[in-house]
Amino acid sequence: MFTKNLVVAAPVQFGRAALVASGGHVSAVIVNSGNANCATGTAGHRACKAVCIDTARLLKTKPSQVFPSSTGIIGVPLPTEKISSHLSPLISRAEASVEKLRAFADAILTTDKLPKIASIPMQSGKAAITGVAKGSGMIHPQLATMLVYLLTDVAATPGELRSVLRKTCDNSFNVISVDGDTSTNDTVLLLASGESKISLRKIRTEFEAGLHSVCCSLAEQIIADGEGVQHLVRLEIKEARNRTEALQIARTIAHSLLVKTAWAGADPNWGRILAAIGRSGVALDPKKVSLVIGNQTVCRGSVACRFDEQRAHKELSQPESRVRVRLGRGNYSLEFLTTDLTSEYVRINADYST
Amino acid sequence: MFTKNLVVAAPVQFGRAALVASGGHVSAVIVNSGNANCATGTAGHRACKAVCIDTARLLKTKPSQVFPSSTGIIGVPLPTEKISSHLSPLISRAEASVEKLRAFADAILTTDKLPKIASIPMQSGKAAITGVAKGSGMIHPQLATMLVYLLTDVAATPGELRSVLRKTCDNSFNVISVDGDTSTNDTVLLLASGESKISLRKIRTEFEAGLHSVCCSLAEQIIADGEGVQHLVRLEIKEARNRTEALQIARTIAHSLLVKTAWAGADPNWGRILAAIGRSGVALDPKKVSLVIGNQTVCRGSVACRFDEQRAHKELSQPESRVRVRLGRGNYSLEFLTTDLTSEYVRINADYST
Repeated sequence: MFTKNLVVAAPVQFGRAALVASGGHVSAVIVNSGNANCATGTAGHRACKAVCIDTARLLKTKPSQVFPSSTGIIGVPLPTEKISSHLSPLISRAEASVEKLRAFADAILTTDKLPKIASIPMQSGKAAITGVAKGSGMIHPQLATMLVYLLTDVAATPGELRSVLRKTCDNSFNVISVDGDTSTNDTVLLLASGESKISLRKIRTEFEAGLHSVCCSLAEQIIADGEGVQHLVRLEIKEARNRTEALQIARTIAHSLLVKTAWAGADPNWGRILAAIGRSGVALDPKKVSLVIGNQTVCRGSVACRFDEQRAHKELSQPESRVRVRLGRGNYSLEFLTTDLTSEYVRINADYST
Repeated sequence: MFTKNLVVAAPVQFGRAALVASGGHVSAVIVNSGNANCATGTAGHRACKAVCIDTARLLKTKPSQVFPSSTGIIGVPLPTEKISSHLSPLISRAEASVEKLRAFADAILTTDKLPKIASIPMQSGKAAITGVAKGSGMIHPQLATMLVYLLTDVAATPGELRSVLRKTCDNSFNVISVDGDTSTNDTVLLLASGESKISLRKIRTEFEAGLHSVCCSLAEQIIADGEGVQHLVRLEIKEARNRTEALQIARTIAHSLLVKTAWAGADPNWGRILAAIGRSGVALDPKKVSLVIGNQTVCRGSVACRFDEQRAHKELSQPESRVRVRLGRGNYSLEFLTTDLTSEYVRINADYST
């Protein structure tokens, strides 16, 4: 699964073509952090290809079976020699250990403060799914998110993996947002080695549940480590007609500067949430809209209710709080995870390239 | 012209109905600041009506000829006694003077730091257009903006005024944004007394040009006084197919947290602008997109150009700078005025209601 941004980085274009050429077979993943290799033109494509060819040669595989990812600044040439000169010592030290997985999770970070790993055993430990992710800013995935690698030893065809992954992304990485900016490099990769000899077809229900749980854990780790984030908000959109409108309303609230800054101050200023719903583009009837902060209804049918402001302030002061929106239009429910907007986010992003 | 938000404040609902009832005739405008009288239910409507009835009685006019506006916090009951008890002394001191106009411009402010007035004489001073506005946060007007009162002594019918105003708003208040949040109380009112005996029909071209100039001046004053704003950015969208897509791209850039925070640091990190264009929803070809900061092309056909970063940083450090986007799709051009996003904006809005 890749970014829906029309401006697409060289590694995403290259990796997508490689997956087609290899029929979905991947032998290695090569990831660099600090440079997105995006808006770098034909030189960027050449650089990406060179890194993949070098990696393939050392691993004795085809370049089309090497999947590249890059994350960092846009528009700066990729310094390939910095990568290629480290490939040989990197590969000679390679091994399938928890320490090396942690080292990989650390190496791919940019503004992240913490590495992001999740793992779940299946079939009483005979197989497993393990995921590694990075992402802290430019987090508003649309069918994918910033660099996620999901590994399993279950045996499966590329087609089986694709269908399971698409469904899982919809309810994990596609319902989170830090800042509403969709990256040019978003990638979620699900790789299956087949080493356990257990076939996905036979344990599909368990596999789907396991993958869902790993992806939700990684999505929550990304949000919790969002740039400058102090408070997580679990937005519940209830009584929508369908997923499209529920998502549209959740995203409008989650991207409102006024809502996000109020959350930074744990301010129960729900009028801003109501105003965001009103401009979301969904043709709803404001008279049917109610808002709940924690377990207190603060507004019913778009009219203010009496509530304990101190208690609402206390609820929003928690590291994670809950805001529920009832639309009175249908039966569709959606949970969306988002964050406040702090001065720290501004500080981090006001001085990135220079 | 009123807000396009579906959640509409009581004074906007009341004022809109009054304009219909009176055939577009307005004798008085009554404005309060500090309370938006929005999401206040039937009590809010009664409160708004009571203030208009009191004002009409004192001015010996009909309540339907009194136009009410409110601006401030959403969801708090309007303290009508605070307004009604001041009406009589307010009206007894009324006069048509520059000082009183300034006092009005001051009285309607909320988080604004400066009053906003613009005036232009017509017919060599025999007639004039004068405008007063307020607005600093929740500025993302859609066919209107936060409280603007335009006064003229030209003689005109409500229909004539409406058609001139609609056209003017499109190119002034509808091409600005501070934070992407459309207010529930946005109002632009154009009032004509006819006292000059000069008919709008006879000076239509001069009147339209004058109104455009007053509205653009007020729009720029609102943006320059935007909450926490340090830098204004004049976004030029060139070579679009039409107004719709030009506006969509301008708004996506103007609302990107990553673009706005880069501007706060005068950081020429143009990759963020390109990424915003790519996720705008316009089905453009990235290979035709170019970006110019000041007078330096920083990216051509979505590929980085060599440019003097220090000079670009200096350009963006000015109180007002220019960023040009070429889309290579058509001949439509649009100018959009927006702002950076600073820690000061977060500070102002993290602690508003409590």
